[in-house]
Amino acid sequence: MAKLKVAQLQTRVHADKMKNIEALDPLLDIVTRENVDMVTLPEMFACPYETTKFPIYAERKGEAMWTACSNLAKQHHIYLSAGSVPEVDDKGRVFNTAYVFDREGKQIAKHRKAHLFDINVHGGQYFKESDTLTPGNQVTVFETEFCKMGICICYDFRFPELARLMAVRGAKIILVPAAFNMTTGPAHWELMFRSRALDNQVYALGTAPARDLSAGYVSWGHSIAVSPWGNVMGQMEEAEDYMIHELDLATVDQVRAQLPLLVHRRTDMYLLEEHMARAL
Amino acid sequence: MAKLKVAQLQTRVHADKMKNIEALDPLLDIVTRENVDMVTLPEMFACPYETTKFPIYAERKGEAMWTACSNLAKQHHIYLSAGSVPEVDDKGRVFNTAYVFDREGKQIAKHRKAHLFDINVHGGQYFKESDTLTPGNQVTVFETEFCKMGICICYDFRFPELARLMAVRGAKIILVPAAFNMTTGPAHWELMFRSRALDNQVYALGTAPARDLSAGYVSWGHSIAVSPWGNVMGQMEEAEDYMIHELDLATVDQVRAQLPLLVHRRTDMYLLEEHMARAL
Repeated sequence: MAKLKVAQLQTRVHADKMKNIEALDPLLDIVTRENVDMVTLPEMFACPYETTKFPIYAERKGEAMWTACSNLAKQHHIYLSAGSVPEVDDKGRVFNTAYVFDREGKQIAKHRKAHLFDINVHGGQYFKESDTLTPGNQVTVFETEFCKMGICICYDFRFPELARLMAVRGAKIILVPAAFNMTTGPAHWELMFRSRALDNQVYALGTAPARDLSAGYVSWGHSIAVSPWGNVMGQMEEAEDYMIHELDLATVDQVRAQLPLLVHRRTDMYLLEEHMARAL
Repeated sequence: MAKLKVAQLQTRVHADKMKNIEALDPLLDIVTRENVDMVTLPEMFACPYETTKFPIYAERKGEAMWTACSNLAKQHHIYLSAGSVPEVDDKGRVFNTAYVFDREGKQIAKHRKAHLFDINVHGGQYFKESDTLTPGNQVTVFETEFCKMGICICYDFRFPELARLMAVRGAKIILVPAAFNMTTGPAHWELMFRSRALDNQVYALGTAPARDLSAGYVSWGHSIAVSPWGNVMGQMEEAEDYMIHELDLATVDQVRAQLPLLVHRRTDMYLLEEHMARAL
């Protein structure tokens, strides 16, 4: 199948964890009537974006939140990119984790945010995820009935290396649950999505929480879908909202044939130079 | 010295090779009166951008064009990024080569375009540099009295790997003699410069030839200067023109301290994954 229909849900984050699942119902009812193949949710869609909250809201894989998301995928017979949630492992380490479920509710991908968001913009945003989170170590690419897709979380997408590795491994669509803020959002959000999509000739979908001015960390919102030519296909405002796009995978192949960026990479140069730079 | 003043000259390309040097005089007179430290010229500023012309216009290092540029740098006591010119080596191979001269006219950098521009956009631009050009194999970073700088040529800058390697090697300013066309210019020129500057937290300066509608390859013009925060400091239109910007190197350090992208790179992941991807 050469086309897929994706709905991005820009939801509001409620303090009551499981209420965030219930709140999906009306939106899912709307978008599934349009026969979407996939639904995407925001980063930390069921946990306030505060470092102190991550360990409190964290669950193991297979617990209530994971099971609820798996059930939603199965019930609606959709691929569900279940945003990200705090995950705790057997050692008590907490991760910012994105799960993806297939139409049968089976988990087909799991990405742990690998680049933790520790920034301190003068007169702007301060945040330090590493206070309570442990980083992941994997590049995440997974198979679907449509094509390979990559997934990473917010600040991960700041790093061209990671997006490139997903494309090199075959991703034609990159999903990014994310939550930029009122400093970095207006400055860099659209630019980042457009450039990663263009450079790697993929569809790039960023799904963010709706803005909540009473939150400790105020989300920029502006969930976005960008084409492999770097064009913005759609972008929301800050309110709770959704949008649906049909992604034509033939476009990826056409763009890559006309402007063969992935073929023209000089990996001979890059690897050598990277090793040299590290040896300096 | 923490600030430098750079003039970018968006010049017209004349078919008479050495006339392109003479034509610089009035512009150099204007900008040097403003005490600029550096002047940048466009890609192939003294040769029509046609694959058949590159071997005809090509010279060895030290011949007329090289010497004229060295003399201009010395005469005006400026750093001169002498755009790019066709260079022929002892084996008869032709390169798209960018020379940089210091205030004494000494060559301090030489970059041979490493990614050759071979594209075929449906209903848009066709071009195949590799018909007559040989690619270079080096990442080019050089020292100045202000900071380290990187230089690459046009299509080279499409590849995030190369810009990243220049930044990792210490470049705080990246010079890009370039000539996008009427297809890729409006679609990608500004996006590419903004994203490379932002991702690597460098000043990125793109210097293009003025538009000539009678040329075989029509330049988009739009020479551009972008800050390390990804903001466009200035951008020309299509006509012959110049612009001068003062680049404050403290800004590079401030941006890198507030949003430490270069420090947060997960090179452990990238190298491992890159090798794995290549082994697939």
